[in-house]
Amino acid sequence: MLPDALLHLVELLARLPGVGEKTAQRFALHLVAEKSGTAQALGAALAELGERVKSCERCGNIAEVDGAGKAVCGVCRDSRRDSALLCIVAKVQDLLAIERSGAMRGRYFVLGRLLSPLDGIGPDELPLPRLFERIADDGVREVIVATPPSVDGEATALLLARELAARNVAISRIASGVPHGGDLECADQITLGRAIEGRRTLDSR
Amino acid sequence: MLPDALLHLVELLARLPGVGEKTAQRFALHLVAEKSGTAQALGAALAELGERVKSCERCGNIAEVDGAGKAVCGVCRDSRRDSALLCIVAKVQDLLAIERSGAMRGRYFVLGRLLSPLDGIGPDELPLPRLFERIADDGVREVIVATPPSVDGEATALLLARELAARNVAISRIASGVPHGGDLECADQITLGRAIEGRRTLDSR
Repeated sequence: MLPDALLHLVELLARLPGVGEKTAQRFALHLVAEKSGTAQALGAALAELGERVKSCERCGNIAEVDGAGKAVCGVCRDSRRDSALLCIVAKVQDLLAIERSGAMRGRYFVLGRLLSPLDGIGPDELPLPRLFERIADDGVREVIVATPPSVDGEATALLLARELAARNVAISRIASGVPHGGDLECADQITLGRAIEGRRTLDSR
Repeated sequence: MLPDALLHLVELLARLPGVGEKTAQRFALHLVAEKSGTAQALGAALAELGERVKSCERCGNIAEVDGAGKAVCGVCRDSRRDSALLCIVAKVQDLLAIERSGAMRGRYFVLGRLLSPLDGIGPDELPLPRLFERIADDGVREVIVATPPSVDGEATALLLARELAARNVAISRIASGVPHGGDLECADQITLGRAIEGRRTLDSR
């Protein structure tokens, strides 16, 4: 009942994360109906996206492509960063969130995925060889594993700890507990368990 | 912290209905990271969208643009449809939903918006002149008002009933009540009230 061009658009929009066919159809109908040229502008922005933005070839962060066609992100280019400190994250969004916190003075490595046996993602699907190369090249001394405190995130953290054990780097895991401003009453059991397990000595000096 | 090209893309994606900046960023990062060329394909589909698909010039439904640059939708082109029966809907999605039901043998008119005093949408913002023209041109005898059973939808239905009263057409409103398969216990008061108000005689023949 819908024109082919629209069905094709719906199919492509449904590939976006978290977008089903119904939402994709809503997007497509909106783009047809609205008059301010969003469809054209979006089309142009997407067409040139691949030439202007790529994954950083060093860490996997988002990077602008330079004149020579190379993509190295701002964090990797920043010479004030501590190369010996490497923070491993699951995805670019997590890197951006940590950057917003301002708490990380080292560099990053984006895994792109987590270990997930149920989805058929085993250790071989993780970019471990690239990570080891990075650690050797940069002389990394400390690795902070900032994968999320989920089942897959914890499994990945354990794998990384095991794989890095022989490589003479200090390994730590981000703390998990009751979030800032959070309510103990509303926190789940696992979070509370971790908050107590991960308790720190209060220094009264 | 993000490249300009990506920020521009995020801004455009955030114009999609129900998409905030965070979701738009997730879409954009996904499009950069994935390798199967969705960004390019989507860019191309959007670039040609305006030339291939437009709102039907008769009813507002989605229509394929023909060789002469005209856009008349499948329902308006279908000669087996009853031109004397016109169903007024708020948006194209509603038209598609009614078509799926197979219960409508007439044609449609898409308002594109509903009366909404709070959003500053008064009677002058509705395409009433085009509707009256359509009713006169097609010799419409019966109008079914299928705006949603919401505050704005009911207000629009009342306005249409008043405006059409002098035009010698029969006007009806779609039924509102407990949906098929619905639970009376879970239905809200207004729905139950309407279900009882709109009761129909059971014919035992």
